[in-house]
Amino acid sequence: MSRPVITLTTDFGQADAYAGTMKGVILGICPDAALVDLSHEIRPQAVRQAAYLLSTAVPYFPPGVVHLVVVDPGVGSERRPVAVQTERATYVAPDNGVLTLALAQDPPRTAAHLTDPRFHLPQVSATFHGRDIFAPAAAHLACGLEICDMGEPFPPSQLVVLPTIEPKQQPDGTWQAEILHIDRFGNLITNYQCATSSLQLTVCVGGERIQGLRDTFADVAPGELVAYRGSSGYLEIAIREGSAATGLGLHVGDPIGMEGPA
Amino acid sequence: MSRPVITLTTDFGQADAYAGTMKGVILGICPDAALVDLSHEIRPQAVRQAAYLLSTAVPYFPPGVVHLVVVDPGVGSERRPVAVQTERATYVAPDNGVLTLALAQDPPRTAAHLTDPRFHLPQVSATFHGRDIFAPAAAHLACGLEICDMGEPFPPSQLVVLPTIEPKQQPDGTWQAEILHIDRFGNLITNYQCATSSLQLTVCVGGERIQGLRDTFADVAPGELVAYRGSSGYLEIAIREGSAATGLGLHVGDPIGMEGPA
Amino acid sequence: MSRPVITLTTDFGQADAYAGTMKGVILGICPDAALVDLSHEIRPQAVRQAAYLLSTAVPYFPPGVVHLVVVDPGVGSERRPVAVQTERATYVAPDNGVLTLALAQDPPRTAAHLTDPRFHLPQVSATFHGRDIFAPAAAHLACGLEICDMGEPFPPSQLVVLPTIEPKQQPDGTWQAEILHIDRFGNLITNYQCATSSLQLTVCVGGERIQGLRDTFADVAPGELVAYRGSSGYLEIAIREGSAATGLGLHVGDPIGMEGPA
Repeated sequence: MSRPVITLTTDFGQADAYAGTMKGVILGICPDAALVDLSHEIRPQAVRQAAYLLSTAVPYFPPGVVHLVVVDPGVGSERRPVAVQTERATYVAPDNGVLTLALAQDPPRTAAHLTDPRFHLPQVSATFHGRDIFAPAAAHLACGLEICDMGEPFPPSQLVVLPTIEPKQQPDGTWQAEILHIDRFGNLITNYQCATSSLQLTVCVGGERIQGLRDTFADVAPGELVAYRGSSGYLEIAIREGSAATGLGLHVGDPIGMEGPA
Repeated sequence: MSRPVITLTTDFGQADAYAGTMKGVILGICPDAALVDLSHEIRPQAVRQAAYLLSTAVPYFPPGVVHLVVVDPGVGSERRPVAVQTERATYVAPDNGVLTLALAQDPPRTAAHLTDPRFHLPQVSATFHGRDIFAPAAAHLACGLEICDMGEPFPPSQLVVLPTIEPKQQPDGTWQAEILHIDRFGNLITNYQCATSSLQLTVCVGGERIQGLRDTFADVAPGELVAYRGSSGYLEIAIREGSAATGLGLHVGDPIGMEGPA
Repeated sequence: MSRPVITLTTDFGQADAYAGTMKGVILGICPDAALVDLSHEIRPQAVRQAAYLLSTAVPYFPPGVVHLVVVDPGVGSERRPVAVQTERATYVAPDNGVLTLALAQDPPRTAAHLTDPRFHLPQVSATFHGRDIFAPAAAHLACGLEICDMGEPFPPSQLVVLPTIEPKQQPDGTWQAEILHIDRFGNLITNYQCATSSLQLTVCVGGERIQGLRDTFADVAPGELVAYRGSSGYLEIAIREGSAATGLGLHVGDPIGMEGPA
């Protein structure tokens, strides 16, 4: 068996030792695991942001990876800790919709509720299931156990799904998308999936009109606005060598208008 | 021998390459080591914060781990670089009290001053002992050397110990604890170690009174204050889906009052 | 062959999943690689800052390391993606000068343009060459391929070089250096390479005069200014247990005067 890979996505930040503690638990169970941080800087309890970031990374990991996601506003409540098996990967997360976007492109085959206490730490706290339930489950799965070993299986159709955010057509025939994510560069990532045929789109954002999509920032002069198909297939808006978020004063959830052939 | 694990706890931040440089030194000596960051975001020179975070993570690492801690306001002064052996782990750190809370739960067996220059880098700078003394020591220990190989042994009772911060009983019979740490969620972690019998405690904090301890945040409505036994055994105060630190305007070191059966 | 080591230096930050996605690509090609983050907090598109941080870390990694640097304001433009072989290491980066300071101490032997599409991901985006071109190249090189396998070789003398920033002599015979970097502690790292003979230097900074260099911060009282030869050989200015940057109100690029025997 090749070296197991486990990714970690949490809202724990990196100042506290929460993520490192989870890694201690994992290495005690699966010492050879390669541990990859996707992000620990998810906004606290921002399930949708975690769902988005996870979905952009999933296609680039080798088969057999275990994705461990702990963004868990409901820790200690009745929300279920689950494991989900797909063709390419295994997911371990609270059942709160955080897997929605990843599973949309990598459909679930089986799912299980992480009920078997043999795969929990001996003492399970009420507030840190990342350490006590999710990390040991991910480690056991990375080392070869099957999700049906971990607890009660259930049909994947029963998994919680986030309400989709899709661009909406307006009465005048134009489309309204919204800002799904803003990255460190201030680039605005929208919820509009681009095809090649979108090249003649006009994008209306923050009072500005951008005529047509370009291939990349380098196609405009420094300081200019540019719309393009981003690296994960979504329409993005940037200011070359600047921040579109700051320059246009926009935030996650703000609307983006689109006109023309889609 | 199983794969060596080395944790790193520093106040170096992650923007500079200081932590990465230490990892380069370690991998040159002990190529198979698994390196786990506990935190590099300790407040500059905050020995007590580092001591707290380390102590919460230590119980969750496999036996044989090496914990490397470089929070070192006295670098270049006469403070001693030391290694400490316990039943479960090896610690490498400046002798400034940063191991106090970890060693309180994992008692030291032997200690040594890291004096042997064979285990330093060939040139030791005056300002970066993390790279030149502590990282190579941790790597050699992770690869099988004993702490008595590294320099002069001394009785662990001579290690510098931080003054304890313990809750104090007031003249009226109530207790006063204080805020030991505030995590990324704004949860207030106090220095009061909870037992199950603390459930009827009344907690007075920031002008608010919280009647009784709950199991978890999910036991109150969003936006409400809640007190509970945290995941490391200390009394914590949170606002569900909010920040208690911001909501109550409190900081590390601020007092927390407690009344009732302890 | 010993375990491959790959370092990563980017301006991607750690909130997004960009760096983690690159690691997924790498582990799919070179599963045994040890991955070391030097920094993902380079200021966006700050090629010179990346060049400086890389150069401080390079001497401390074992031979055979691959340094992957993605600070790439010109992504999607005509700037070349390159690999460079030296005696000690292999570098993978955009050809924009980011390797200048590292290669000044570790001279290039051969260089190649990363043109061979067999070592790119099957689909190359216009905006994320870190994932699609640089990460797979680094992984293949870490696993044993040679840089001449990756694309067209060219003479290393054709690599883009950053204009040097060197201290300048003033008409009155004094020298003017500048602040190259400010670290997390607020220490000012200058572009002046110190020798032992610099000990009698007088440093003029932010309206203050510092007489003579010390070995380390611990040679002055807390709160006092101190100049010393830093851990990478450059003149540094600090306030012991404080921030020189905040205390003196200084920024990267601000001037530092020097008088006396150099």
